Amino acid sequence: MGPMSGTSSTPSTPSGTTGTPGDAAGPGQGLDPAIADRLKRTPDGLLPAIAQQYDTGEVLMLGWMDDEALHRTLTTGRCTYWSRSRREYWVKGDTSGHVQHVKSVALDCDADTVLVQVDQVGAACHTGARTCFDADVLPLGR
Amino acid sequence: MGPMSGTSSTPSTPSGTTGTPGDAAGPGQGLDPAIADRLKRTPDGLLPAIAQQYDTGEVLMLGWMDDEALHRTLTTGRCTYWSRSRREYWVKGDTSGHVQHVKSVALDCDADTVLVQVDQVGAACHTGARTCFDADVLPLGR
Repeated sequence: MGPMSGTSSTPSTPSGTTGTPGDAAGPGQGLDPAIADRLKRTPDGLLPAIAQQYDTGEVLMLGWMDDEALHRTLTTGRCTYWSRSRREYWVKGDTSGHVQHVKSVALDCDADTVLVQVDQVGAACHTGARTCFDADVLPLGR
Repeated sequence: MGPMSGTSSTPSTPSGTTGTPGDAAGPGQGLDPAIADRLKRTPDGLLPAIAQQYDTGEVLMLGWMDDEALHRTLTTGRCTYWSRSRREYWVKGDTSGHVQHVKSVALDCDADTVLVQVDQVGAACHTGARTCFDADVLPLGR
């Protein structure tokens, strides 16, 4: 497959993306239709996915999932995102070692957001900070 | 202003939306350019905004903010979102009484997500549940 520079094509058909269905994803049969049928996705076919440390409650980061990333997150025990910039599936920790072990996954009341409770190994943030929200606290009142 | 049915126009120019800059928003001078200049918004001009209960760590809900909603959240002490479906600003709790008092606001490392720590009055979810993630836990392993 050639390089892709656009950011607007739809990742919900994984055969057209860098990732292919089922590689390192267990059964590889795709997301349960009982779940897929009620998801409300962005125009890009994605859901925002909040990763939270399951015991401390820290909000670690926000990533994006298409159906296949959600399927892999549910079935492999490892939190898996869709990278909008690289246009590929991204198993958190595969390069950094900062794995997210999945403890639970929930949809919100509108089925348009995912909350993944994880056990985060090391830093969640690529900067080395524990969470992606540690460094940029905004001033209130102005 | 007439009714709008589209979902793709850009809310980052509030004069073209139901809300107008500065109404019930305090100083009404808009978001500090030092913040606005580094935000990375969706094509719709929005950032996902995670609301978290400041003391328990519960993830309450995810909403969306444009620059003006973020400005109002920073300056009024009340969490304010942009409603994608109604295309208007939405001060959480104005109709339900389920106010979110703002404790802190942070951007993530990419400046494309907001984390708002709040003190939530009553239920965060329109269903009456404490959080929007209470009711739909997905099964793991399939």
